[in-house]
Amino acid sequence: MERQASSTECWHDDVEAANAELRAAEAELERAKQRILAAERAVGVARRLKILIAAAIGAYYTRDINVALENDPHVVIFCTSVLSTAKVLEKFPKEALAGRLVVDVLSVKEYPKSLLLEEMPSSADILCTHPMFGPQSGKDGWQNLPFVYEKVRISSPRGAVICTEFLRIWSDAGCRMVEMTCEEHDRHAAATQFITHTTGRLLAELAPETTPINTKGYESLLQLVSNTTGDSFDLYCGLFYYNSFSKAQLEKLEDGLKRVKESLFAFEAEQIKEDGGPQAKWVLSPSGSKPACSGKAGVSQS
Amino acid sequence: MERQASSTECWHDDVEAANAELRAAEAELERAKQRILAAERAVGVARRLKILIAAAIGAYYTRDINVALENDPHVVIFCTSVLSTAKVLEKFPKEALAGRLVVDVLSVKEYPKSLLLEEMPSSADILCTHPMFGPQSGKDGWQNLPFVYEKVRISSPRGAVICTEFLRIWSDAGCRMVEMTCEEHDRHAAATQFITHTTGRLLAELAPETTPINTKGYESLLQLVSNTTGDSFDLYCGLFYYNSFSKAQLEKLEDGLKRVKESLFAFEAEQIKEDGGPQAKWVLSPSGSKPACSGKAGVSQS
Repeated sequence: MERQASSTECWHDDVEAANAELRAAEAELERAKQRILAAERAVGVARRLKILIAAAIGAYYTRDINVALENDPHVVIFCTSVLSTAKVLEKFPKEALAGRLVVDVLSVKEYPKSLLLEEMPSSADILCTHPMFGPQSGKDGWQNLPFVYEKVRISSPRGAVICTEFLRIWSDAGCRMVEMTCEEHDRHAAATQFITHTTGRLLAELAPETTPINTKGYESLLQLVSNTTGDSFDLYCGLFYYNSFSKAQLEKLEDGLKRVKESLFAFEAEQIKEDGGPQAKWVLSPSGSKPACSGKAGVSQS
Repeated sequence: MERQASSTECWHDDVEAANAELRAAEAELERAKQRILAAERAVGVARRLKILIAAAIGAYYTRDINVALENDPHVVIFCTSVLSTAKVLEKFPKEALAGRLVVDVLSVKEYPKSLLLEEMPSSADILCTHPMFGPQSGKDGWQNLPFVYEKVRISSPRGAVICTEFLRIWSDAGCRMVEMTCEEHDRHAAATQFITHTTGRLLAELAPETTPINTKGYESLLQLVSNTTGDSFDLYCGLFYYNSFSKAQLEKLEDGLKRVKESLFAFEAEQIKEDGGPQAKWVLSPSGSKPACSGKAGVSQS
């Protein structure tokens, strides 16, 4: 049923529409305010939770660097992402780290070693570490999980004692303590961790799906894809850019694929000589892409 | 102590040496004979073992095709490798397969389907199957392991009964029975099994080694390499050459690696703009390849 609107109704409709828009805008504004308040409450709760958790283990939680340093900590651990480390250090009151043990926990090691040696006061001790586990792999405890470290600069007898005490926390928790240079770490990590992440991300590009005929090997690839893409892309880029050995590993992977492909194509060339190639091979052209061929397969002619 | 040999001693030595050589040659000949006898015994034992094993399950073992066919089998299963199938069929007295159910068990399916349709007498029924497990994955039983099949040509009511009986053997053993066309199988298998094997062989090219800092993900890659290179290279080539979907998957893998590489290099280009690249990044040039740089890292300059 159609209705012809009079000019009065039009004007009336316009005012109604404008009012409706205004009310909608006000409601949206109110919802936005509520979301901000909810977010502030969440942050507040999270912070209070952190304070309580810290208190439970006899620690004090603060977001204020100066307050933290007023407590005169023996050890200062930078738990930064690879990409943010330089920026965090830039803003840190580094002179206040004199005489303390400074620790990093990055997944690359030459880079923070270099950065800390450059940036820290000369009286600060430096311990570069890589606890090689996370919330997933360490969820049932740290038994036998590798904790890699290099005592980069431990100058005073007091610093040596503090460093030993700090490392003992991890070994007491069951970690497998692995002492190696940052360079050694990065060489191994490029060949293992970076290659693992690259393989996972490479396979992710194929958007692999579960099929009715998954093999156990394929299931393990699906698992790998899910694990590696679960980590942030920034972390992956960090493993590449801040590890001087990663580029060579990427090249090895490219060369490897090239060699595998070459060996398959060499096999194909030999086989085509023998059986005449796809046209002869699939005599009945089962899938659409292959041309039909009425002759017998080359291989089966006697 | 040196000794000057007289000419008589020389002659004497020559004869002795020649005799020694002769005796050594005779001993070697005897050992070779013994090895042949031992090998023949081993073959004999293996064959007698097979006869006994067959008898234990109420079967008859023979290496003579004609003897086998004289027993009028309902089902003839070709358990050939992908590469040998055409040659085996070429020499087989195919006319004797008329009225029987012919089965293959290859890891590719369009190829044997086409071959069997072309080569078998028209009265032979054809069942293409892929039991997707081996001595390793099936060592604790076949429960839930996939048995893929296509009833390619089942012409007579008698053939249908025999086919049903044959499939029941596998389902009774616990296999997960998956009925799909040979084309569907090959499409899935290229995306799963071929990609798995290619990933394993690609990683094998890097000669990956265990390190003191293996992650769990890396351990699973080492396992993959060991599993896939444990299969023959011929099988791998067969999965490529005789599956019409494999080449497209190989290309997807190449494209995937290219895209991952591009995203890493794009990240690197952006990052170099920000922090000045390796020279600035590794201010102390920790590993040999990077030039020393006396300046401060770009990122840490305020």
